[in-house]
Amino acid sequence: MDTLAYAKLRTQLEELAHFSSTLALLQWDQEIYMPAKGGEPRAKLISYLSVVAHEKLLALNSGKLLTKLVQEAKKTPNTPEAIVIRDVWRSYTRERKLPTAFVQELAELTSRAQTIWAEARAKSDFSLFLPSLKRLVELKRQEATYVGYKNSPYDALLDTYEPGLTSAQIDPLFSELRDFLKPFLRKLKAAKQQPPAATRLKGKFPLREQEAFNEQLLRKVGFDFEAGRIDQSTHPFTTNFHPYDVRITTRYSETDALYALGSTIHEMGHALYEQGLPVEHFGTPLAEAVSLGIHESQSRFWENMIGKGRPFWKYFYPKLQKQFPKPYARVPFETFYRILNRVEPAFIRTEADEVTYNLHIIIRYELERGLIEGTLKAKDLPQLWKAKMKDYLGVTVKNDREGVLQDVHWSIGAIGYFPTYTLGNLYAAQFSETAKKQLPKLEAQLEKGNFTPLREWLRTHIHAHGKTFTSEALVKEITGEPLQASYFIKHLKEKYGELYEL
Amino acid sequence: MDTLAYAKLRTQLEELAHFSSTLALLQWDQEIYMPAKGGEPRAKLISYLSVVAHEKLLALNSGKLLTKLVQEAKKTPNTPEAIVIRDVWRSYTRERKLPTAFVQELAELTSRAQTIWAEARAKSDFSLFLPSLKRLVELKRQEATYVGYKNSPYDALLDTYEPGLTSAQIDPLFSELRDFLKPFLRKLKAAKQQPPAATRLKGKFPLREQEAFNEQLLRKVGFDFEAGRIDQSTHPFTTNFHPYDVRITTRYSETDALYALGSTIHEMGHALYEQGLPVEHFGTPLAEAVSLGIHESQSRFWENMIGKGRPFWKYFYPKLQKQFPKPYARVPFETFYRILNRVEPAFIRTEADEVTYNLHIIIRYELERGLIEGTLKAKDLPQLWKAKMKDYLGVTVKNDREGVLQDVHWSIGAIGYFPTYTLGNLYAAQFSETAKKQLPKLEAQLEKGNFTPLREWLRTHIHAHGKTFTSEALVKEITGEPLQASYFIKHLKEKYGELYEL
Repeated sequence: MDTLAYAKLRTQLEELAHFSSTLALLQWDQEIYMPAKGGEPRAKLISYLSVVAHEKLLALNSGKLLTKLVQEAKKTPNTPEAIVIRDVWRSYTRERKLPTAFVQELAELTSRAQTIWAEARAKSDFSLFLPSLKRLVELKRQEATYVGYKNSPYDALLDTYEPGLTSAQIDPLFSELRDFLKPFLRKLKAAKQQPPAATRLKGKFPLREQEAFNEQLLRKVGFDFEAGRIDQSTHPFTTNFHPYDVRITTRYSETDALYALGSTIHEMGHALYEQGLPVEHFGTPLAEAVSLGIHESQSRFWENMIGKGRPFWKYFYPKLQKQFPKPYARVPFETFYRILNRVEPAFIRTEADEVTYNLHIIIRYELERGLIEGTLKAKDLPQLWKAKMKDYLGVTVKNDREGVLQDVHWSIGAIGYFPTYTLGNLYAAQFSETAKKQLPKLEAQLEKGNFTPLREWLRTHIHAHGKTFTSEALVKEITGEPLQASYFIKHLKEKYGELYEL
Repeated sequence: MDTLAYAKLRTQLEELAHFSSTLALLQWDQEIYMPAKGGEPRAKLISYLSVVAHEKLLALNSGKLLTKLVQEAKKTPNTPEAIVIRDVWRSYTRERKLPTAFVQELAELTSRAQTIWAEARAKSDFSLFLPSLKRLVELKRQEATYVGYKNSPYDALLDTYEPGLTSAQIDPLFSELRDFLKPFLRKLKAAKQQPPAATRLKGKFPLREQEAFNEQLLRKVGFDFEAGRIDQSTHPFTTNFHPYDVRITTRYSETDALYALGSTIHEMGHALYEQGLPVEHFGTPLAEAVSLGIHESQSRFWENMIGKGRPFWKYFYPKLQKQFPKPYARVPFETFYRILNRVEPAFIRTEADEVTYNLHIIIRYELERGLIEGTLKAKDLPQLWKAKMKDYLGVTVKNDREGVLQDVHWSIGAIGYFPTYTLGNLYAAQFSETAKKQLPKLEAQLEKGNFTPLREWLRTHIHAHGKTFTSEALVKEITGEPLQASYFIKHLKEKYGELYEL
């Protein structure tokens, strides 16, 4: 390895990372604290810095630096340096295909469309968002053409979120899942043994007390507040500027403490991943997450596999009861657990239970793939949305706010992102199976509030590797098998079979 | 004017402004929301972007673009374009003299020194901060050498904050002021008629209620919350990313509502200036403040000339009484007014009254000038500080936290900044005299809560001009005279003569 050339690359990557961190802060601030009129100048600023970052990425190969390093990497293909070089080359070759004017228009449009979407959503009026969405779809189709693809233009977009994965690989997984879920959901609905209504857990939860409880939970599980923080936003998210500055958001309901807790635990999973990345490699792919699917596996792991399980709540429920005796003091543990895991087809993805959640995703996957492949039109989305919700979940969507406008993703140009949520669920279930085998005392540890062994297991097996493995290789490395839907299906069958006494 | 060349400059200036806005957000976030471990990576990020911005500023003259425009500007010296070109040329020629490595070291050191200072202050231990301060003084002396100066290296630093002004001009103003203030303060202390103790205004003020009251006050006076926000920080400040995104901070005491209100009104003055800059010129000096002294004149105007006067409180005091009946309901207006304006020599500059405030500044001016001129050493600061506080204000400083460590300025490399606070007071008093003449109904308007005429007067005469005039020219333009200390002295004599029945 030409160490001088590699050191030069390293410096440039760190500079690029400074731009990524800055853009992440600009977006975080836009979402949480920016005043309304700041939107226009912020869109210009973000667009400008995106272009500078784009040009900086392209400049990585000036003097054929990258080309030479790629050749060198072939001699020692398994070294960390070679891994970095290959991944940077991958990003570089993709980015090289995007004209600067295109990058600029996309950055400006997505920053602006986000504000327009928020307004359209508030007014529950899809027509306000339609012109932006149409242009976005055009641009994303153009992106696919620039980048190139084998079978579907959708694959070119998916690749940014789940490198290497194609819709041809997703299709059988999602089909298996859909074919299981639709009849399974009908069975649950028909079951005689239904959990009590969620209203029993409603009450009055002052914001400050909720904030304190969420923070206490995060701290206990191992979120490092010296290296992160939690804020409020409409749509919860995690962002990171550096493993030492990882920020999550959640949202509160003053009548339902579980509303925030679910989001908080979910985002905590993302945050533990980011805080667990090896700081010494900051700026390189070795300190980056494998993919959005693997990222989501971490949030889903904590949110569902752990955070909706009995052992976790055996520890936290008494604390919740103490903090909010009304209503929890009168609700026995088993009742709480059953309400927490109540399956209830509804409109909003982010509030969906473990069973119906993936049907929400499959709907979005089918729709956005249609948009990109040109088989359906943006203007028809509200109707198609309603039809699929009725078909898959059996619910009647009343308006755009509770339907097609509920999610931010399309407005920020994130098409190809949704499937990673369900992939995350599948990864999480498969990882969970292995973790349980390798940590035989896990249940008892969780019940005692000892989260260290599990957190360290995830850190050692997943976080610490950065992008050393592709998602495909990582799953095999950890579980000995390629990704499959069966583990998740087994998890649902066992858990909900018991709960609903099927 | 070569319109194509000018348009090119305009674009580059806007790009530079994007960097300034970004750096301002990074610093705002560092001060208010960044977690502790984020400090190191943030310092590197800020340092890196400062260097990029520095190089971008230098690149303004590539192809001799600026040199040519400066020649063109001589033909039409009074056009807005010529004003922009001259001011940019001024910044460019200064910046050109600073080596990139120097800019980088200074940016990194100041970002880091701020954290070190905060820790030293918390521990009240100057020795922790001394090594950073020593290096900072070295760098700032070096900066003066790079930039060049006629009489004192201090002038080279002062010039960044108050363009064109020298210590030779400041000296007679500050001497006149000091020679008036020292005996005047003794007279006030000896007066038989002393305002009641401040303890009568103490109470229990819940944070949320205070926040609501401060926001209500800001809104009423005319701060645009669509184009700005207010947060909490240890040291109140105003920052702006764009006239449409101007942010202030304040700090609260749960036992004294006036503690926050004073800061809020002060920062509001800064913010109204920034929100009043002509947005169509964003990126150019025509949308920038004249100088820190003129900026401070706006905060001081609202904080002291207006916000410590009877008419303002005739409107707001009943509202304050309603919001916090304990303790205010029992305190008559005149008693409140007299306590609000109580003169009390004390340790902390930011909490000082109108009379003693400038003595705090003069002490800092004398000390930092000595540091830069090499007539005194950083290690001797705590002792010198104590001696001057005793001499000028008659108070005995107990420790570093309440002494030499109280202000953030030196830690961020802002040497030459302090005098602009007192200049602000002098400008404010002189502007106030003119405003009263030109707005004969001002008092009655303020009493009725009609702040529009005054706000518009400031906007028309000061804010809307951006940097069209130098501070010297602006004062003459508005008041017909150069800056002098006599207006401020007259203000103090009249106000406090009545209050203390001298």
